[in-house]
Amino acid sequence: MNRVVDAPPPPYYAVIAPAELREDIRGYPELAAKLVELAREQPGFLGIESGSQRGFALAVSYWASLEAIAAWRVNSRHVIAKQKGMSVWFERYVTRIAKVERVY
Amino acid sequence: MNRVVDAPPPPYYAVIAPAELREDIRGYPELAAKLVELAREQPGFLGIESGSQRGFALAVSYWASLEAIAAWRVNSRHVIAKQKGMSVWFERYVTRIAKVERVY
Repeated sequence: MNRVVDAPPPPYYAVIAPAELREDIRGYPELAAKLVELAREQPGFLGIESGSQRGFALAVSYWASLEAIAAWRVNSRHVIAKQKGMSVWFERYVTRIAKVERVY
Repeated sequence: MNRVVDAPPPPYYAVIAPAELREDIRGYPELAAKLVELAREQPGFLGIESGSQRGFALAVSYWASLEAIAAWRVNSRHVIAKQKGMSVWFERYVTRIAKVERVY
């Protein structure tokens, strides 16, 4: 997760997920690791890049198609549902679906 | 830079910039700060999110249009040209231009 993702030539899709973290994020790193593991098993997953800073986390995963993202979302919901939900750890978060059109 | 960006409803554009860092990044944080400052002055700039981990940096900036990104690139090239170039600090980096189509 600390490498630039080698994706095929565009177009492909990015899921950009920024989150403002609460003070107590116990349990979240384990969930995040599970979600990444799940993503890697998913058809159409191209890779993930992530980083954090004080109180903030940013992850960008790459996908071959919107269908692949939709399938991963359904699967990840099952995993998340077993937890108390993202709002336990996140003060605020959004998910942005973007089409990568150009890479240089 | 440690907040989720409040962008207007999509569509808008994201510049996703992952980089593998070399060991010696002296001078880079200052350049990065200058580039962000420059972006903030640019028409169409919507915000930036970033994070890092050991040897890796990830930044996503948001823009109202491709024209705004192009203008910022021209301006940022002048700033970067005064330095020795990104490859002094980066082992590897890419820039991905993506159209944000959906946010939830």
